Amino acid sequence: MATGDIGLIGLAVMGQNLILNMNDKGFTVVAYNRTTSKVEHFLQNEAKGTKIQGAFSIQELCAKLKKPRKIVLLVKAGQAVDDFIQQLLPHLEKGDIIIDGGNSHYPDSIRRTKELESKGFLFVGSGVSGGEEGARYGPSLMPGGSTAAWPAIKPIFQAAAAQYHGEPCCDWVGETGSGHYVKMVHNGIEYGDMQLIAEAYDILKRGLDLHEDEIANIFEKWNKGVLDSFLIEITTNILRFKDDDSQPMVTKILDQAGQKGTGKWTAIAALEAGTPVTLIGEAVFARCLSAIKGERIRASKTISGPQKEQFKGDKQQFIDDLEQALYASKIISYTQGFMLMRETAKELKWNLNYAGIARMWRGGCIIKSVFLNDIAKAYEKNINIESLLFDDFFIKAIQNAQPGWRRVIAQAVLYGIPTPAFSTALAFFDGYRSEVVPANILQAQRDYFGAHTFKVLPGKENAKLKAGEDIHINWTGRGGNVSSSSYLA
Amino acid sequence: MATGDIGLIGLAVMGQNLILNMNDKGFTVVAYNRTTSKVEHFLQNEAKGTKIQGAFSIQELCAKLKKPRKIVLLVKAGQAVDDFIQQLLPHLEKGDIIIDGGNSHYPDSIRRTKELESKGFLFVGSGVSGGEEGARYGPSLMPGGSTAAWPAIKPIFQAAAAQYHGEPCCDWVGETGSGHYVKMVHNGIEYGDMQLIAEAYDILKRGLDLHEDEIANIFEKWNKGVLDSFLIEITTNILRFKDDDSQPMVTKILDQAGQKGTGKWTAIAALEAGTPVTLIGEAVFARCLSAIKGERIRASKTISGPQKEQFKGDKQQFIDDLEQALYASKIISYTQGFMLMRETAKELKWNLNYAGIARMWRGGCIIKSVFLNDIAKAYEKNINIESLLFDDFFIKAIQNAQPGWRRVIAQAVLYGIPTPAFSTALAFFDGYRSEVVPANILQAQRDYFGAHTFKVLPGKENAKLKAGEDIHINWTGRGGNVSSSSYLA
Repeated sequence: MATGDIGLIGLAVMGQNLILNMNDKGFTVVAYNRTTSKVEHFLQNEAKGTKIQGAFSIQELCAKLKKPRKIVLLVKAGQAVDDFIQQLLPHLEKGDIIIDGGNSHYPDSIRRTKELESKGFLFVGSGVSGGEEGARYGPSLMPGGSTAAWPAIKPIFQAAAAQYHGEPCCDWVGETGSGHYVKMVHNGIEYGDMQLIAEAYDILKRGLDLHEDEIANIFEKWNKGVLDSFLIEITTNILRFKDDDSQPMVTKILDQAGQKGTGKWTAIAALEAGTPVTLIGEAVFARCLSAIKGERIRASKTISGPQKEQFKGDKQQFIDDLEQALYASKIISYTQGFMLMRETAKELKWNLNYAGIARMWRGGCIIKSVFLNDIAKAYEKNINIESLLFDDFFIKAIQNAQPGWRRVIAQAVLYGIPTPAFSTALAFFDGYRSEVVPANILQAQRDYFGAHTFKVLPGKENAKLKAGEDIHINWTGRGGNVSSSSYLA
Repeated sequence: MATGDIGLIGLAVMGQNLILNMNDKGFTVVAYNRTTSKVEHFLQNEAKGTKIQGAFSIQELCAKLKKPRKIVLLVKAGQAVDDFIQQLLPHLEKGDIIIDGGNSHYPDSIRRTKELESKGFLFVGSGVSGGEEGARYGPSLMPGGSTAAWPAIKPIFQAAAAQYHGEPCCDWVGETGSGHYVKMVHNGIEYGDMQLIAEAYDILKRGLDLHEDEIANIFEKWNKGVLDSFLIEITTNILRFKDDDSQPMVTKILDQAGQKGTGKWTAIAALEAGTPVTLIGEAVFARCLSAIKGERIRASKTISGPQKEQFKGDKQQFIDDLEQALYASKIISYTQGFMLMRETAKELKWNLNYAGIARMWRGGCIIKSVFLNDIAKAYEKNINIESLLFDDFFIKAIQNAQPGWRRVIAQAVLYGIPTPAFSTALAFFDGYRSEVVPANILQAQRDYFGAHTFKVLPGKENAKLKAGEDIHINWTGRGGNVSSSSYLA
């Protein structure tokens, strides 16, 4: 008789840890791996003395599972996922659930949901965040796909997930590829958060000439306020970590950032969706700029910045301003991230659970923070809120932060310290709150050189400029489709 | 006996104009169109009295051309190009040249070059800029593909192209899809140039409260200096253009910018290449932000910016600073654009003609300017220059511009006027000239939460931190692969 609550394929560390986690929560997990010696080894070591069962073939795995069967794939993203799905299908029955917990790109999850649903099966693509230890003791889980699968997997997923003050960091995200999409946006936001912290460090170090220990004290204090988060906490620890010669370890680390691609995916998705997710874009590009270290070293020798001046103002005030700059920029970054999810949901007809997404991110993952609880509250108050900048809490927060935010950027600009993420956040904020932006100039130019037409500004209509119409002006008096030939450089 | 110098397929206005242009330069052009009544109509109207020949079948077209045959396609990008290529092949001989002058995406041109070369034919993908009037009186032409085709098409292409002080705005770009790639980057740079002008207008209007006529006078003056360019010239004209009620027309244009996708392509290509082309990225996103006008109007009612203050400084000085800010930002944008071409050339093993590219852009296209002549000179002096910021002329120019550039951005930041392009340009500049950027923090964080490892900063090596090695630190003392579980929000 089948006694397995859930099966898991892929016994790398992530898979083993997730199995042990689910076992701890009282579920009977059946473990399978293509190289079956790994199953044997797992049963005799990490899984010894637990309820965990082994399977040495796909058939055995499926036979050992209660119906509807629930099978998690934790294998390499790409072909391996499709291969295992093909191997599983002959042994499954209608209503059985395949869950992909790997780092799949969301278009693949969209395709797989559709393919499996058309055959009567259910598919879930689930973002899993928190790394190997997260998998073992409580990850952030972001499942999306076949909605009918949720009631069946919910008890297991919510038990295995990290808990934030007793609430699980797992909820249903939405349709088809939305789980992996939301995980991608999470990673993009992570890039942004990290870049903001790096810029704050740079300003404190190069601008105020503070030592790493002093900066650690500042971060420690920030971690007790609105910035309270895992990334601020670990940055404090990092700044305090000394090498054997008592020098801060961080000062010995090469300033070339690596990346694994999900930040880039998010920025590309934003461009494709036409949503201005500028902060993640700048964070990705900042890593690219860090990577050309040789070129930067050579440039540093031929180009000089402003003359270094000692900071003359009130240091504590400036540090408080910086805290507000980081907070305000973070509000913008999450505003943009949620705008991107909103646009994609519109496009792909997903019903996204925005409050749930914020709740899922409160624990178990890299961007976990108190801040996400405030975002969850905003969407709980009003699920249809246009953006975070329409929520009273965040309006008040950013209004309060604004003066310091501006002072910090203006100072950094004059000092010659690069703040791509702080600056783009403020530019977005100032554009977003502008009833009129200078895009009228762009439209006039486009109509001038390419006859691309424009629309009239509401309130300025007249007999020639009619509301809603595509209008073309003969700007030069030289005939219909004026082009660029009038100019001789 | 065949007397045609070149054939052209596709008799829309662009095609007709390019034929008339080549005819003016003394070449015998054979015109063909799928709907052959268009050929008849063209011969009896626009082409009447010229040497232009018509063809009423692909076979006739090919029969009328001297060998090696040169056939330009000016048809809709995509399937139509492939279809015509397939129709042409049975009537061509080895060494014949097919030229795609449409708006093809460069990966298609890479594929077509390879396919045709494998069959013994030659293929050229050529960027054509300048719109319909450019086609008629001198476009900027950017041909790339089968290098062996260049000598055969060079006389025709260089004669038909716009001339900059007697030099043709056409040169050989490089291999496979490089012609269309360079055209794409041209369009991306165009987005950047336009956004910079829009930001300058916004600062003058909202910051200094100037009238469009006053702003036009400033642009007119700028057009006599380092900013001398087609886009500054037409902006002057646009600002002076009045509606019937004597109000500036531009103040009646809806501030929602359209886009046709090539700016987006460039930004995506930059992300894919890992090159920080931040200014084009911000320009594309600024158009996206302009597009959500309704959301901006609603946000403008709930969020307020800094209290409006009258400008108290020296207005003329500030305007001069703004000119320098625009100039410096433009230098950064082109630096980034050329860096992108360099990275892609490395990746795809293209030998790009950087000086030639700058020369091609000096006339005939939207971004034509005196500035591009300076870029051409930089690459003529040293084709292997790492970036424009290693050229003495540009180093001096940007050093000179720096103080004003910083003052303008700092002021705009305090005023609440968004300057995403100005700001990102400066952030890039300050990052590029920084020997050390704070990416050491990112690497430490990535190693802390994901064991992603880091490398040691040169000069800081020791027994534990070995040069070139991937180093992992046990940051928390809790074991090898430390993850995020230590944090409880």
